[in-house]
Amino acid sequence: MKIFIAGVDGYLGWSLAQHLSSRGHEVAGADAFFRRSWVHEMGSRSATPIASMPERLQAFRSRFGREMTFWETDLRDYAVVEEIFRDFQPDAVVHLGECPSVPYSMMDVNHSVFVQTNNIVTTFNLLYAMRDIRPNAHLVKLGTMGEYGTPDVEIPEGFFEIEFRGRRARLPFPRLASSWYHWSKVHGSNNIMFACKIWGLRATDVMQGVVFGTRIDGTERDHRLLTRVDFDQAFGTAINRFCCQAVIGHPLTPFGKGHQRRGFLPLRDSMQCLTLALEKPAAAGEYRVFNQFQEVHDVTDLACTVQRVAETLGLSVRIQNLENPRAEAEDHYYKADHQHLFDLGYQPAHDVETEVGIMLQDLLPFRERILEKQKALIPNIRWDGRRESVSFLQSRTAVA
Amino acid sequence: MKIFIAGVDGYLGWSLAQHLSSRGHEVAGADAFFRRSWVHEMGSRSATPIASMPERLQAFRSRFGREMTFWETDLRDYAVVEEIFRDFQPDAVVHLGECPSVPYSMMDVNHSVFVQTNNIVTTFNLLYAMRDIRPNAHLVKLGTMGEYGTPDVEIPEGFFEIEFRGRRARLPFPRLASSWYHWSKVHGSNNIMFACKIWGLRATDVMQGVVFGTRIDGTERDHRLLTRVDFDQAFGTAINRFCCQAVIGHPLTPFGKGHQRRGFLPLRDSMQCLTLALEKPAAAGEYRVFNQFQEVHDVTDLACTVQRVAETLGLSVRIQNLENPRAEAEDHYYKADHQHLFDLGYQPAHDVETEVGIMLQDLLPFRERILEKQKALIPNIRWDGRRESVSFLQSRTAVA
Repeated sequence: MKIFIAGVDGYLGWSLAQHLSSRGHEVAGADAFFRRSWVHEMGSRSATPIASMPERLQAFRSRFGREMTFWETDLRDYAVVEEIFRDFQPDAVVHLGECPSVPYSMMDVNHSVFVQTNNIVTTFNLLYAMRDIRPNAHLVKLGTMGEYGTPDVEIPEGFFEIEFRGRRARLPFPRLASSWYHWSKVHGSNNIMFACKIWGLRATDVMQGVVFGTRIDGTERDHRLLTRVDFDQAFGTAINRFCCQAVIGHPLTPFGKGHQRRGFLPLRDSMQCLTLALEKPAAAGEYRVFNQFQEVHDVTDLACTVQRVAETLGLSVRIQNLENPRAEAEDHYYKADHQHLFDLGYQPAHDVETEVGIMLQDLLPFRERILEKQKALIPNIRWDGRRESVSFLQSRTAVA
Repeated sequence: MKIFIAGVDGYLGWSLAQHLSSRGHEVAGADAFFRRSWVHEMGSRSATPIASMPERLQAFRSRFGREMTFWETDLRDYAVVEEIFRDFQPDAVVHLGECPSVPYSMMDVNHSVFVQTNNIVTTFNLLYAMRDIRPNAHLVKLGTMGEYGTPDVEIPEGFFEIEFRGRRARLPFPRLASSWYHWSKVHGSNNIMFACKIWGLRATDVMQGVVFGTRIDGTERDHRLLTRVDFDQAFGTAINRFCCQAVIGHPLTPFGKGHQRRGFLPLRDSMQCLTLALEKPAAAGEYRVFNQFQEVHDVTDLACTVQRVAETLGLSVRIQNLENPRAEAEDHYYKADHQHLFDLGYQPAHDVETEVGIMLQDLLPFRERILEKQKALIPNIRWDGRRESVSFLQSRTAVA
């Protein structure tokens, strides 16, 4: 299958290019290297040293024995997207070309506007190029479980059947996102659902949980194949950040009471799931939603897991909660379906503990890289608009 | 009250400025005159001859004995919005500064992107200016009943209480919009709901039905006070277009089977309702949704009403359905709550028949203006992307 990856230089994109290529697919990709500059803007860098795109493409060629076509370009420009589609004629499109950061979107008006417009415009351009050039191509769009927020009822996969005042209907499940970034993903989901309806396009919208992990299988042969691992306040997600903290002896830092519950999955499972979606595509006109995560965990439990695994490696780390820079429920009901991908054959590779062990060992050689940028670990982007570093809370029990 | 109107040169904006001023409020406004150029782009113009803004401001001064402060500016520029808020210090903000056209948003990728980004960015800029400069100001945001689409269940006002798998929650009612424009309004509603939650802002989101009418009380004294009335395929809404068709002897043109049901209200009722929302504002942190319409009507019934009233004025008009350029249900269930505004004191001014009589008489002097641009009446923007004029259908019974 010919698969075009928007955002191929990113954490998921670069991994997915390799994973799909190892399964025999022909991969092409585009990227404007925004992620590299955003992380730089946050005063940080990837914990893993990442190669430049020319080096990555060389490594790709030597590993797979074929080229990956690459466009360095901004996908907000429709003329460029059109040209890529005419050139490459993709059978499938994976849209990872969005800004994925919650705090980045909450910084100020310019960042909020940038995140929402970037994410909306790139999605529009891909939808129009599909309609006009590859109407049978399958769009796999990366959404997020964060679109749903934390409602007081169970979360189905995208849609639910309700009875309301004596009549029944199948409707989109209401979204309660909790950042401008998450809302940008809701806007995208709504737009894609509508495009499938009026243009007969096929799409899978992946409500992905929080991904963690330092690698997929095969990257150990060549350091140029490594993907990025971020730990800064804006682009470092929970377990990745905890693992980076652990290897430098920094306290693990849940926010507030630390009882936020979310769905998580390892990077290699994310690759497996996206591949399942691609290889078993939606039907023409179908807009389907997959909730993609392995298990739901409490953030503090995960910190304890990282702490425990770190100890087996001789690393001693404390857990010390931080003042919560976000406006979010710290204690809440959370239960979400995630059956669709299991039905397609998803099989989790490891449990969290095993994966965290691999991560810590992968990160240990890069202690110095993290230490030098450790200031990026403490959030100073607050939901109320203040730009002021949060403080450590006295102790976990004090805020329980 | 000091009220800032974004989009003060538009159909609703110019009317509202006068209505609020006649009630003693201090009004200021901004506009980039986009609406004038969009209608020109559609090969049309307002049926009523509208004055330039300098003339309007003069007429405003001579009628009300005071100035209306006006900024000619694009509200996508945050620096400008900030300056306006610092200068004027509004107590309330009415956001009419969005592109309001369904077909305009469906034309091609550039128009889709323009409509959604314009509407999102202007809303963001107003929200941020409120947060940072006037956190107690009340936002009245013009949404549309079109955000809900036509679900198979009753439509509540914004939120509903559901039971799902044994648990109960109050959630936003799912939206099923049917154009990129309508979705832009959903995106805006979601963003505003979130801003109220995290920043404690107060907002009323008005899900407005289709507005019709040529005037509000008081404009008869001075032709420079007239608001615009559009009849082209993109900016002319159902009853306004039917009335413009009637006065030139053009067939009235429901789309497809013509059984689409929508909520409608006269322009003067829209003014009354927006004023009620402004004078009885939402509480701090409250995001409330009003469904704003007088009655639900079937589009063909409305065409028959216009035909009947036109006959009493000696105008003979046929009803001839057009091929439907849209992808929409032409026969569907439709029932929507609209109690909140009645609870605040909304009293409909006229029945549809009376209002249509006033409109036809207002439009008769402008027959030539409509005749010259009558080509703009027939849609050529289709939801499937083709740009090709639709045909008349054989007869109403043939498609019933």
